[in-house]
Amino acid sequence: MNKGALALLVHGGTENWSPQRWKDRFDQVCSDRRVLLLPDAAFDPAEIHYAAVWKPAQGELAAFPNLRVIFNLGAGVDALMADSTLPKVPLVRVAVDDLTVRMTEYVVLHVLMHHRQELYLRASQREKRWAPKFQRPASAISVGVMGLGTLGSNAAQVLGRLGFRVSGWSRSARQIDGIECFHGNAQLEPFLRRTDILVCLLPLTPDTRHILNRELFAKLHRNSPLGAPVLVNAGRGGLQNEADILACLDDGTLGAASLDVYETEPLPADSPFWAHPKVVLTPHNAADTDPDEISKYVARQIERFEAGGTLENVVDPARGY
Amino acid sequence: MNKGALALLVHGGTENWSPQRWKDRFDQVCSDRRVLLLPDAAFDPAEIHYAAVWKPAQGELAAFPNLRVIFNLGAGVDALMADSTLPKVPLVRVAVDDLTVRMTEYVVLHVLMHHRQELYLRASQREKRWAPKFQRPASAISVGVMGLGTLGSNAAQVLGRLGFRVSGWSRSARQIDGIECFHGNAQLEPFLRRTDILVCLLPLTPDTRHILNRELFAKLHRNSPLGAPVLVNAGRGGLQNEADILACLDDGTLGAASLDVYETEPLPADSPFWAHPKVVLTPHNAADTDPDEISKYVARQIERFEAGGTLENVVDPARGY
Repeated sequence: MNKGALALLVHGGTENWSPQRWKDRFDQVCSDRRVLLLPDAAFDPAEIHYAAVWKPAQGELAAFPNLRVIFNLGAGVDALMADSTLPKVPLVRVAVDDLTVRMTEYVVLHVLMHHRQELYLRASQREKRWAPKFQRPASAISVGVMGLGTLGSNAAQVLGRLGFRVSGWSRSARQIDGIECFHGNAQLEPFLRRTDILVCLLPLTPDTRHILNRELFAKLHRNSPLGAPVLVNAGRGGLQNEADILACLDDGTLGAASLDVYETEPLPADSPFWAHPKVVLTPHNAADTDPDEISKYVARQIERFEAGGTLENVVDPARGY
Repeated sequence: MNKGALALLVHGGTENWSPQRWKDRFDQVCSDRRVLLLPDAAFDPAEIHYAAVWKPAQGELAAFPNLRVIFNLGAGVDALMADSTLPKVPLVRVAVDDLTVRMTEYVVLHVLMHHRQELYLRASQREKRWAPKFQRPASAISVGVMGLGTLGSNAAQVLGRLGFRVSGWSRSARQIDGIECFHGNAQLEPFLRRTDILVCLLPLTPDTRHILNRELFAKLHRNSPLGAPVLVNAGRGGLQNEADILACLDDGTLGAASLDVYETEPLPADSPFWAHPKVVLTPHNAADTDPDEISKYVARQIERFEAGGTLENVVDPARGY
């Protein structure tokens, strides 16, 4: 039997994400199927049954009349959901352990950096000052995680193991061992009131766009033992109002921020974030994903789908993630 | 009955460690006993049965003829063990959860900083360069913890939960869930050979003085995925040969180092560590201890001792810790 082909549409990425690297991986895990790295010399659009994509151009996917499933090679599907020409077939998000543990690394690192006064300590080192400062234990600090999917839940649990007081907030009710869970608009304010370090791992949807704004920051723990509350955003740049973050850092509403994502990426050279003394900036690398793990995940799902099984982690178009 | 008095000999420390703060805490937890903050106006040396000390002067403890137990208010007893006039009574080390979780915070933070290329990322931010670099997952990195007492075991377990490959080395054999344990001189080399990030939490004894030297660094994983192996020392400054660390950083035997302790503290202003681009320096604040927790720990031990029970965490003079 001639199996439908898999089209790879991979644009951009770091050295580990080269389109050819994806092609090599998919050739191995889909050895009984044609894998096309687009743009490809010669193929018939009708033979494409599956597409695995990273930042495809608007309309690119509409060219395949027999498309059955789209696999996004990252966790966030906001750009795809904004494409009105997207074929009405199941869209599958990545949810592999590899992505989860990498995001937890980032979250734990940045929460600890702020908790352990790294900005102060690095400045002391530059100034050659031996000046230890009172250091609270993790148990004195409340970390609030917005977004309690696979990523948020795992990060919250490791933070709890380190001794932080951890609470979480999500759109709909969740239950996680050892984490006080809040949900919905009505419980957002009590969640924020107790939060010293706010970690944002929300998906970007019309409901969450610019949710990280002055009004929200003003509701964070006002008598925070850290002096002022701290923001860590490793979700999407569209979640944050960047002018508000800068103004709130400057007037003390926020004490510091770790940002991995930005409204415009790469971050423009004239962004005030680069040189801001209270900003710890990373170039959207909180959770690189590994072609090895993800290609296996996609191949497994295709096999199950063709055997009549159910796809996992299918995006709900109404929720947007 | 007139209970023996407790003498407090507290020298140095940060704002949270003021001698008066210790006195206040001990007055509360030993309310049925005289607590003397030395130098005190008037007391009879013979009434002192217990001493709780932080960096006492050489010979200071020999002045109490009826001393029964010495409590050290920190984890490391190397300075006391070096005092040949130390009375031959039980010497008790601190082992409270508060100290353990603070040390784990430090270790996890610094291991993650090196694993996640923080030195590179901070330099990129200063230079306003958006330049994500290939980032391995924690599962590609072997962390080796030297010293598997309360502190080392807890840190090793949290590192394991984060996904690192973790092994440990200690003087005598240990068994810890999920950690590959090595012990004794014969197993030091195989332990080092696999280690990408070496975390040192050893006690300082005549056997361990200057154990962190070129010969040891040269045995670390030579094909480390980090480029070159990394040292994290939060034990004691006397464990490290500082000239060797500098030379090994400069010739590439070591890729970077996080140091919390130094041969001379405070670190002299002319130390090359301050401005070294591969050194992350902290002013011996990896694990501050909390007078609240420690005073309760000492009071509990005195009560048990007076009721005929056994003291916990008594230093073995032969081992030196």
